Amino acid sequence: MSHNSFGHLFRVTTWGESHGPAIGCIVDGCPPGIALTEADIQPWLDRRKPGQSKFTTQRREADEVRILSGVFEGRTTGTPIALEIQNTDQRSKDYSDIATRYRPGHADVTYDMKYGHRDYRGGGRSSARETASRVAAGAVARRVLAALSEERIVIRAALSRIGALGVDRDRWDWAETLRNPLFCPDAATLPAWEALLGEIRKAGSSIGAVVDVVAEGAPGGLGAPIYGKLDADIAAAMMSINGVKGVEIGDGFEVASLRGEQNGDPMRMEDGRIAFESNHAGGILGGISTGQPIVARFAIKPTSSILVPVPSVNRDGEEIDVVTRGRHDPCIGIRAAPVAEAMMACVLADHWLRHRGQVGGA
Amino acid sequence: MSHNSFGHLFRVTTWGESHGPAIGCIVDGCPPGIALTEADIQPWLDRRKPGQSKFTTQRREADEVRILSGVFEGRTTGTPIALEIQNTDQRSKDYSDIATRYRPGHADVTYDMKYGHRDYRGGGRSSARETASRVAAGAVARRVLAALSEERIVIRAALSRIGALGVDRDRWDWAETLRNPLFCPDAATLPAWEALLGEIRKAGSSIGAVVDVVAEGAPGGLGAPIYGKLDADIAAAMMSINGVKGVEIGDGFEVASLRGEQNGDPMRMEDGRIAFESNHAGGILGGISTGQPIVARFAIKPTSSILVPVPSVNRDGEEIDVVTRGRHDPCIGIRAAPVAEAMMACVLADHWLRHRGQVGGA
Amino acid sequence: MSHNSFGHLFRVTTWGESHGPAIGCIVDGCPPGIALTEADIQPWLDRRKPGQSKFTTQRREADEVRILSGVFEGRTTGTPIALEIQNTDQRSKDYSDIATRYRPGHADVTYDMKYGHRDYRGGGRSSARETASRVAAGAVARRVLAALSEERIVIRAALSRIGALGVDRDRWDWAETLRNPLFCPDAATLPAWEALLGEIRKAGSSIGAVVDVVAEGAPGGLGAPIYGKLDADIAAAMMSINGVKGVEIGDGFEVASLRGEQNGDPMRMEDGRIAFESNHAGGILGGISTGQPIVARFAIKPTSSILVPVPSVNRDGEEIDVVTRGRHDPCIGIRAAPVAEAMMACVLADHWLRHRGQVGGA
Amino acid sequence: MSHNSFGHLFRVTTWGESHGPAIGCIVDGCPPGIALTEADIQPWLDRRKPGQSKFTTQRREADEVRILSGVFEGRTTGTPIALEIQNTDQRSKDYSDIATRYRPGHADVTYDMKYGHRDYRGGGRSSARETASRVAAGAVARRVLAALSEERIVIRAALSRIGALGVDRDRWDWAETLRNPLFCPDAATLPAWEALLGEIRKAGSSIGAVVDVVAEGAPGGLGAPIYGKLDADIAAAMMSINGVKGVEIGDGFEVASLRGEQNGDPMRMEDGRIAFESNHAGGILGGISTGQPIVARFAIKPTSSILVPVPSVNRDGEEIDVVTRGRHDPCIGIRAAPVAEAMMACVLADHWLRHRGQVGGA
Repeated sequence: MSHNSFGHLFRVTTWGESHGPAIGCIVDGCPPGIALTEADIQPWLDRRKPGQSKFTTQRREADEVRILSGVFEGRTTGTPIALEIQNTDQRSKDYSDIATRYRPGHADVTYDMKYGHRDYRGGGRSSARETASRVAAGAVARRVLAALSEERIVIRAALSRIGALGVDRDRWDWAETLRNPLFCPDAATLPAWEALLGEIRKAGSSIGAVVDVVAEGAPGGLGAPIYGKLDADIAAAMMSINGVKGVEIGDGFEVASLRGEQNGDPMRMEDGRIAFESNHAGGILGGISTGQPIVARFAIKPTSSILVPVPSVNRDGEEIDVVTRGRHDPCIGIRAAPVAEAMMACVLADHWLRHRGQVGGA
Repeated sequence: MSHNSFGHLFRVTTWGESHGPAIGCIVDGCPPGIALTEADIQPWLDRRKPGQSKFTTQRREADEVRILSGVFEGRTTGTPIALEIQNTDQRSKDYSDIATRYRPGHADVTYDMKYGHRDYRGGGRSSARETASRVAAGAVARRVLAALSEERIVIRAALSRIGALGVDRDRWDWAETLRNPLFCPDAATLPAWEALLGEIRKAGSSIGAVVDVVAEGAPGGLGAPIYGKLDADIAAAMMSINGVKGVEIGDGFEVASLRGEQNGDPMRMEDGRIAFESNHAGGILGGISTGQPIVARFAIKPTSSILVPVPSVNRDGEEIDVVTRGRHDPCIGIRAAPVAEAMMACVLADHWLRHRGQVGGA
Repeated sequence: MSHNSFGHLFRVTTWGESHGPAIGCIVDGCPPGIALTEADIQPWLDRRKPGQSKFTTQRREADEVRILSGVFEGRTTGTPIALEIQNTDQRSKDYSDIATRYRPGHADVTYDMKYGHRDYRGGGRSSARETASRVAAGAVARRVLAALSEERIVIRAALSRIGALGVDRDRWDWAETLRNPLFCPDAATLPAWEALLGEIRKAGSSIGAVVDVVAEGAPGGLGAPIYGKLDADIAAAMMSINGVKGVEIGDGFEVASLRGEQNGDPMRMEDGRIAFESNHAGGILGGISTGQPIVARFAIKPTSSILVPVPSVNRDGEEIDVVTRGRHDPCIGIRAAPVAEAMMACVLADHWLRHRGQVGGA
Repeated sequence: MSHNSFGHLFRVTTWGESHGPAIGCIVDGCPPGIALTEADIQPWLDRRKPGQSKFTTQRREADEVRILSGVFEGRTTGTPIALEIQNTDQRSKDYSDIATRYRPGHADVTYDMKYGHRDYRGGGRSSARETASRVAAGAVARRVLAALSEERIVIRAALSRIGALGVDRDRWDWAETLRNPLFCPDAATLPAWEALLGEIRKAGSSIGAVVDVVAEGAPGGLGAPIYGKLDADIAAAMMSINGVKGVEIGDGFEVASLRGEQNGDPMRMEDGRIAFESNHAGGILGGISTGQPIVARFAIKPTSSILVPVPSVNRDGEEIDVVTRGRHDPCIGIRAAPVAEAMMACVLADHWLRHRGQVGGA
C-alpha cells in the first residue's frame, strides 16, 4: 500500500522532486531475460522532454536515464530495475513567493493541509517532472509487452482537443502526431492550435486539453472482475496524471444517451475468430479486454501556474493576489500524451503478468 | 492483490454469484468500538433493492443482511466483519440460451475468453447483484466516517441524466431524490424520465444514464500523491461499477475548455479558515481533499440484456441473433446511485484511516 | 494490507469467531477450471476436527463446509470461492469469569490492550477455531497444486516432539501418522506420549510440542528474492498459527554449529539433472526452492487455558488467580499438524502462481 | 506484491546488485515533519560496514549514503525517501569460475533455476551487500519510532553464539556489544570466539551463528490478528536476511518442553499498570505486543563461499569441485546484527503506523 507505487506484478515505484538532485523509479517484477538498455528507454523520454517547442516549459533537461540495477549483460535478471534521471536545470532562485502563496487550482494548499511541510521548489513532488519516471517505466513495460506478445502491440496517444478546438476525427492520422510537437493527429487543426497557444502564452494564461490513448494488439482476456477491472486500473492510472479531471473508456459519457441495441458491439465470425463490428466498448467488457483496440480518453485542466493574477491566500492567512512567474507549460496536456502511453503500457504489462499467473496460458 | 477486494486499511472483499445460494463480503480493518447492527445496514440495502418500481428488475429479493462476525454486543471488535445476504429469488429456469450465446455489450464473452468456464446463471459473478455487497460494506464505512468525524459527513448520489434528458441543475434538490424511485433531484424532469423509461421498457430496450455523487463534510488532507490520489481511487471505484464507461471529478471534461484563471478556485479567508469561492476542482487538488464537497460523476451504459434482437455469435462460433428474456433493469443507472454512495463512503473511510496512520491527527 | 488475509495471487481471507454463528474464508485467485466440490475439502477438515480423541477439546463440531461461490458445475470459475462452516456447539454458558480475567500466556490481555472491546466467548477471534478455515483453504490449494504440477505434490505434517519426548527420527514413518490421533510418526514413541498427555490432562495442565511439515514434489524455482522469499513466507505462515514461537527451515538452529563445508548440500548429476546429496537447506536456497523436499518445523507452546491456578490480573486491575474451566486441548500442537499442512499448501500455490506470472513457464 | 519491498504503511523497497554501480532503497510512508539528515543514517551504516575487522570481508566500501528525495530543509515531507549508496570497491576481476559453478549452500543454483539469467558478479542481487540498504531504511525507521513514542525505544542486537560457543547469558552486557567488532555481549566469551574465527579463517572455512535482537520501550497493542501478527512479520523479516534458517520469539523452541503454568507469564499490578513477572512470550501474545521487551532470535548458516573444495556441478552439468576465492565473511552472522536491528525497527514502525491508522490513539 505504497502511495508512490502502481501495479501489482509489474510494479513501479517513483521518487523525486522537481528541484532535488534527481528523480527515478524502481520497476519490480519485470520478467527475466528481456533485452534492455538505456537506448530502449531514452527515445521515449526524449518525446516527453521539456523545451522542445515554445509551447512547453523552457526548462532544459537532458533527461538522461541510467539503469542502476536489474539488468546484466543487456538483459533483465528478474530483480528490481532502478532507473535514475539527474535534475540538471533546477535553477537556484528566490522561492519566497511560491513558498507561502497558494496558487488556486494547484496542490500547494492541499500538500500543506496534509503534511504541514513541503518542498515548494518548482512544485516539489507535485511537479509534472515526476512523470519522466513514468515514461522511463513505460519504456520497460513496452519491452515486456513485446516479449509477451506474438502480435505487435502499439500504444499511442494524441491530443484530440485543446480548449474548445477539437480535431476532426475523420482526419485522424497517427503518423501526424510524430511530426508536430503538439501530438496533433489532424494536420488541418494544427494551425488553429498554434494560434490559440500563442495567444494563451502571450496572455500569460493556460488552457486545458483532451488526450486520447489507444492500445492495439492486446489479446482478449486481460483484466479481472470485480475490483481488478482493466478499465478501473486504466481510469486510476490516467487520473493519477497531474491535472486530469475526467476519464473515459470507449464511448465514455456518450453511452448515457445510447439504447442497448446501439451500445452493444455486434459480433460476427471472421476466420474462425470472433470479430466485433464496432467498438463502443473501447475494447473492454466487464473489466476484461475483448481483443479490440483499448481506447481511453482524458481531460486535463489548464496549468495553475499563470501570470494572470488570481485571488488567493498565503500560509499566514492573508488574502493576496497570486502571479506565478517562471517556466511553465501553457498546456500541460501536451506533454501528458507520452505519459499516458507509458501508463497504458504499465497497466497492460501488469495485467498480462497477473493473467498469466492466475489463469495461465497467454 | 486480490481482484475481488478494494481499499487498503478499510478493505472490502466481496464474493458471490447472482444465482448462487448467497452473496456477501468481508470488511477488514474497521476500527473497534463502533456501534453496528444489521439495522445500520439494512436501510441502505433497501434503497438499492430490486423490484421497487416498474423501472427496475422484477426479481424479488429481501436482501436481508446478516452480520456473521466482527461485532460483539453491538460494537465492532476490530476483527473482520462478515456480511451475508441470501439469494432467495434465483428462479430455476432453462439457461440453455444464455449459457452459450454472447450478448453484445455484455461480459459473457470476455469471461469465456478469460476463464473458459463461467457461471452463466443470471450473469453469475458479472451480475449487478454483486453490488448489494458493496452497499452493505458502504453502510459500515458510513459508521466509520461518523466515528472519525466531528462534522457530519453526508454522501449522496442522484441521477443527473437518463438518455439525452438531463436535469436542470438550478432546480437540484437532494430531498427530491428520496421521494422518487429514480433518484431524480429535479421534480420537473421526473415525468419526462418516467415517460422515456416507459417507452424504453415497452420497446424491450434499455438506456444509459449519468449519476452524480457528492460527499460533504470530509476534511482537507485526505488522499495522497502520487498513486494514492483520492481522485484516482474514486475513479477506479466508480469505474468498477457494472457498466460505467466514464468518470469525472469536479468540472470533469469541461476543464479542457477552461483557461487557468477560470479553472483555479479562488481562495479567501473566512472565520480564520481558507474558503474557496468556487469548486471547479470537485474538492480535490493534487489528489488530496481540500475540505470542499467532493464531487464525482459517471456515465453508465444501457443494459445489454434486451429484447431487441442483436447480431452476435455463440460459443460454437455460429452467427446468431440474441434476444434476452428475463427480468432486467431497463436503466441500470438507477440502482447504481446507492452503489456509488457506498463506494464513495468506502474510499473516504479507507483514505481517512490511511491518513491517520501515515500522517497522524484527524 | 488486510490483517486477515494471506497470500498474493492465491489469497485467503478468513473471518469468524469461536462462538459466533459461523466461520469461513474467501479464496481469491484460484485458477479456473479446477474440479472442486465439498468432498475435496471435507476429509481435511475431518482430520483437524475436535473431539476425535481424549487429548483434544471435547467440543463437538461437525465442521461441515459449504461452498457458497466460485464453483459452477463442479469446477472453479476463477471468481472468489467462499467457504463457510457453521458453529454448532458453541454452548451458551456463563462467561463472566473469562470476560474480565486475563489468562497468562493468552491473547486476552493484548486484544484488550489493542482494541478495548473483544468477543471473549471461547477466545473469540483468537481461538484456534479459526484454523478450520485455513484447513478448508488449504484443501483448495492442494487442488491447485495438483493442477499445476505434473508430479504428485505430497504435503504432510507430523508431531516430532511433545514436551521433552522427541520421536526417534530413524523410525519416522509417515504412514503411522494416519493411524494415530496424535500425528505421531513413530509407533514406538506413541505410548510414552499417551502416558504423558494422560498425566497432563489429569493435572489440568497442558504441554508444548514440535511439528514438522514437509512438502515433496514441488519444483525448483519457486520463491523470490529478497522479501518474497519462500522461506520467509513459510516462516510467517507457521508463526501465524496460534501458539507458535519458533520456526525452522531445514537444519534450522543446527546450522549455527556447522562449518561451510558441512552445511552446503553437495550437488551431483543424476539422469541429466542436478541432484543434491543431502538436504540441510530444507529445499530452499536464497529464498527459492531447489526441487528437494521443503522442510519446515515449528514449536508450539502449551495451551494457556488450564485448570492449574496462575497469578494474574483482571480488567479492573485487581490481582487474582486464574483457573480456566471448559473444553480445551491439553496440547494444541496436535491439531496444528493439519493446519501446518494447509498453510504450506497455500504458500506453495501462491508462489507457484506468482512464479508463473512473473517468470512464466511451469 | 513487490518481491523487493517489505512493510505496508512504512514500506521499504530495495534495489541493487553487489557489483552494480550503486545500491539503494525507497522508504515510502514515512510521516512528515521528522528531522532527518544523512548524519542520522550514516552511523548505522558504519556499524555494518565491511572491512572493520579481520573477521569480515576485506572489501572496502565507504557506504556513504545520500538522501535523494523526500526530505526538505532537514525534515521529511511525507513523500518517498530515496536513499542511495555508491558501490566503490567492486573489483574488476575474472568471474569465469563463479559465473558457471554452483556453490553448495548458495543461491547461485536457484537463481539460475528460476531466472535462467543472473548477475553473478559478487553474488549479484543475492549478495549480503543488499543489507546495507536495509540498515539505511532502519535508521529512518528509528527516527519514526522516536517521533511516535514518548518513551525511548531501544533496539539492539548481539551475537549469542558462534558455532558451538554460546555466551553466558548471566554475563550479558549490551554495552559490551559496542566495544568489540563481533557484537559479543559477553566479554569473557570474546577470546574464544576470536580464536575460533581465526582458526576458521585459516582453514578457509566458515561458521554459523545465532543473533539475538531485542526491542525495548514499544507499547502494548502493536500487531494484529490473524495474518498481520507482529511475530509473523518479525519472523518473515528475519528469515529474509541472507542465510537465516531459524527464528524464535521469546522462549522459542523451549516452549515445546513447557507446561502451561510454566509458560504463561504471570501478571501483577505495578503503579496501576499491568506488569509481567517473566517474559517467556518475548513480548508478544496472540500476535500483539504486551509492552514487554520484544525478543527475537535467529540462526544463520555459515557462508557458502569457502576455500575448502566442495563437490558440485556447473551450468554445463559437469561434476566439479568448487573453491571460492575472493573476499568473504567467514561468519556472516556478525554483520547480520545491525541488519536485524534495522529490520526490527522497520517492522515496529510499520505496525505502529498501521495501529494508529486502524485503531487510532498511540
